[in-house]
Amino acid sequence: MPTAIVPGSFDPVTNGHLDIIQRASELFSHVTVAVARNSAKTALFTIEERVELLQEVCSHLQNVSIGTFEGLLVEYAAEVNAKAIVRGLRAVSDFEYELQMALMNRRLHPEIETTFMMTGAEYSYLSSSIVKEIARLGGNVEGLVPDIVRQRLQDKVA
Amino acid sequence: MPTAIVPGSFDPVTNGHLDIIQRASELFSHVTVAVARNSAKTALFTIEERVELLQEVCSHLQNVSIGTFEGLLVEYAAEVNAKAIVRGLRAVSDFEYELQMALMNRRLHPEIETTFMMTGAEYSYLSSSIVKEIARLGGNVEGLVPDIVRQRLQDKVA
Amino acid sequence: MPTAIVPGSFDPVTNGHLDIIQRASELFSHVTVAVARNSAKTALFTIEERVELLQEVCSHLQNVSIGTFEGLLVEYAAEVNAKAIVRGLRAVSDFEYELQMALMNRRLHPEIETTFMMTGAEYSYLSSSIVKEIARLGGNVEGLVPDIVRQRLQDKVA
Amino acid sequence: MPTAIVPGSFDPVTNGHLDIIQRASELFSHVTVAVARNSAKTALFTIEERVELLQEVCSHLQNVSIGTFEGLLVEYAAEVNAKAIVRGLRAVSDFEYELQMALMNRRLHPEIETTFMMTGAEYSYLSSSIVKEIARLGGNVEGLVPDIVRQRLQDKVA
Amino acid sequence: MPTAIVPGSFDPVTNGHLDIIQRASELFSHVTVAVARNSAKTALFTIEERVELLQEVCSHLQNVSIGTFEGLLVEYAAEVNAKAIVRGLRAVSDFEYELQMALMNRRLHPEIETTFMMTGAEYSYLSSSIVKEIARLGGNVEGLVPDIVRQRLQDKVA
Amino acid sequence: MPTAIVPGSFDPVTNGHLDIIQRASELFSHVTVAVARNSAKTALFTIEERVELLQEVCSHLQNVSIGTFEGLLVEYAAEVNAKAIVRGLRAVSDFEYELQMALMNRRLHPEIETTFMMTGAEYSYLSSSIVKEIARLGGNVEGLVPDIVRQRLQDKVA
Repeated sequence: MPTAIVPGSFDPVTNGHLDIIQRASELFSHVTVAVARNSAKTALFTIEERVELLQEVCSHLQNVSIGTFEGLLVEYAAEVNAKAIVRGLRAVSDFEYELQMALMNRRLHPEIETTFMMTGAEYSYLSSSIVKEIARLGGNVEGLVPDIVRQRLQDKVA
Repeated sequence: MPTAIVPGSFDPVTNGHLDIIQRASELFSHVTVAVARNSAKTALFTIEERVELLQEVCSHLQNVSIGTFEGLLVEYAAEVNAKAIVRGLRAVSDFEYELQMALMNRRLHPEIETTFMMTGAEYSYLSSSIVKEIARLGGNVEGLVPDIVRQRLQDKVA
Repeated sequence: MPTAIVPGSFDPVTNGHLDIIQRASELFSHVTVAVARNSAKTALFTIEERVELLQEVCSHLQNVSIGTFEGLLVEYAAEVNAKAIVRGLRAVSDFEYELQMALMNRRLHPEIETTFMMTGAEYSYLSSSIVKEIARLGGNVEGLVPDIVRQRLQDKVA
Repeated sequence: MPTAIVPGSFDPVTNGHLDIIQRASELFSHVTVAVARNSAKTALFTIEERVELLQEVCSHLQNVSIGTFEGLLVEYAAEVNAKAIVRGLRAVSDFEYELQMALMNRRLHPEIETTFMMTGAEYSYLSSSIVKEIARLGGNVEGLVPDIVRQRLQDKVA
Repeated sequence: MPTAIVPGSFDPVTNGHLDIIQRASELFSHVTVAVARNSAKTALFTIEERVELLQEVCSHLQNVSIGTFEGLLVEYAAEVNAKAIVRGLRAVSDFEYELQMALMNRRLHPEIETTFMMTGAEYSYLSSSIVKEIARLGGNVEGLVPDIVRQRLQDKVA
Repeated sequence: MPTAIVPGSFDPVTNGHLDIIQRASELFSHVTVAVARNSAKTALFTIEERVELLQEVCSHLQNVSIGTFEGLLVEYAAEVNAKAIVRGLRAVSDFEYELQMALMNRRLHPEIETTFMMTGAEYSYLSSSIVKEIARLGGNVEGLVPDIVRQRLQDKVA
């Protein structure tokens, strides 16, 4: 039964991410949420904090584990014997970038399939960046991220 | 282990469709290719011909069967206990229509997931309509459809 | 204080339309919902039925009236001294067609402004066509259209 | 020096078409405007009328001639030894369809190049369909089409 | 009668911005042009210079005033009792970002409406960034920005 | 006979670039590949290295030469008497930016035409950035760039 990877920066995890993770966990026997160790981007949360937050908010999902990776995602997917990479799609601009990555990944590892799920309509305007911007400007992020993330976010930007 | 549906008109099946069916068959325990009995559209091939062609070109895939449906796809998916609907994405215009249908289907049956796979780059310009147009205008459709479909297509438009 | 027009086919009015009409009625002193008498398109509801349904579902909005028009929308807008045409936007494909119409209308009557409002996320997948298709195929349209429209729709497709 | 084809329905020719034809005539040694004899679409002007109108409005361009074709455009291009097919692009929806056709044509005749020119900003909202719709509804098409086309259009819809 | 906000960086104001401000001033009783005090972005003009330039080029519009804001735009809109936020749309990529922001703003303050106006065709390729790039590279920005802005721009990049 | 320019950063040249250069060289009497001396962007290869790599991989194309430019591309095109600027299009997001630039260039130099060619389907996911990212992360770029570029790339990231 196939294993899937849900990759991302998760800086921090939002309710939109959680929606995709939950739905992936119903289709696949096992789901690894893979946090990118991307040194280039300046993150608000450390890798350790991001993993910890994901572990808390996914603790009710039995077949979900959290990992981290460096380098090419598709190579990590091959290492952990994943059959699929699962991505959420929100908008046309997502779509084009994701299409490029999917075709490139397929070229490197044709045995690993990239599948897409549409983000729920209520999360179509949601991203980690927009959540961080709202928190930074003093806005209310309730309902956009899990409660524990909201508290950490407020501590960070305080 | 989840069952998936690959729906479509398949009038006729192209190499792009076949690519999606094969890749879905590697991810899911069973795949039902579901041909829409859509009375509104005028088709070149009858439902029976479309099913027969699909049966021939999918005969090497052990976990794939062919069916037909009338009415709402998502209701058919619920009836046959499918966990997922698999759709191929080629272009932005596909994407928008598919997003609408996925959100609507999710509203009607939240337990059925719509997943998307990117059509291979070499099939990104391929559709049943364009294949029929080329055949009708006397062009060569070799490499665009399976050989048996090409022969039937030439008989039809002769 | 400016008057606005919300044009459409309204065959039939959906909750997405109603959302735009209500929001327009809060911005403009008066809103005329203008139903297109388009002989070319085959409609499910007659013009009279569409107007009647709109009158019922808009009866709580004091500054909204229902009208019909033939010919160019922008000429009708000029006749009734509207300052603005209000359109709902859902998707990229909407956007491009609407952009063309807005630029053309501006060329014909520069004094009339076309303004756009984003359809609420929960209605982003909603259209009269999809509602009619679901009703025709026996699906449930509750929550997609006002109750009275739902009943009429079920009578029509029975 | 290469010859190019500017294909279309030209039902009727607009100022946007003329803009592309003129610009193509400055890049290529010879330009053939190729009118599609498409029996499927119901046209307002006959093939003969469309050719005649094009001949009049292009009479000042020495290296432009008018032709008609049936069947696949790319086969016609090969027959007349054209090196390039020139298409105008206005919007994203144009772009996707044109991309599909360009890739398909390249597959059939790799020696013929499809090139695109952006329609001038002032014509970005212009199409034969929108011009016919405005004329039919009694609107003013001055500045959208050459004068002679405007007169014929008014006769047609009278 | 409702008040509207036209927000932006205006670094510097272009003829495209001015077009939107003028048109908004005809629809709304009062328009506040709101310049973002965004410390993150490195601007060419200081906040004070941007406000001053806006004041000069809008001095003929009686119901337009210039303000600045920090933090969330929608909170500022609520503070000044604006009923609407007016945004110009040029292209599909604008559209998607604006849709996200509009949905997010609506979630935070449902009583404030985001409305969109299409930028005139002649300004569809215009942005502050492109104007600054042209000026920096020694190109001519006449007709792209008001004359006073052109002079200041040439002083800045000299 | 017209001369064309194929502009870019070429940091480094990919097989997608080479595809466009070759096809442009068949349409135009002479093609100048113009490398942008853009001080703002941090490049992996120096201008000299990029020019040298282009010279090697284009050495079989008799009517192609390599140049560099600073400032506005369209001014450089005017200086070298080019009649056309040739750009490759891959995706919708390319398209919008390119449309803006083409309209702006046309405004500055109406006698220079911007023409577009569709990147071959097999290169639709290819860009210098993605190639550099793959190389940096230890992935295999064979088939994505000419062999000599692949070797230099591996030396650079080692």
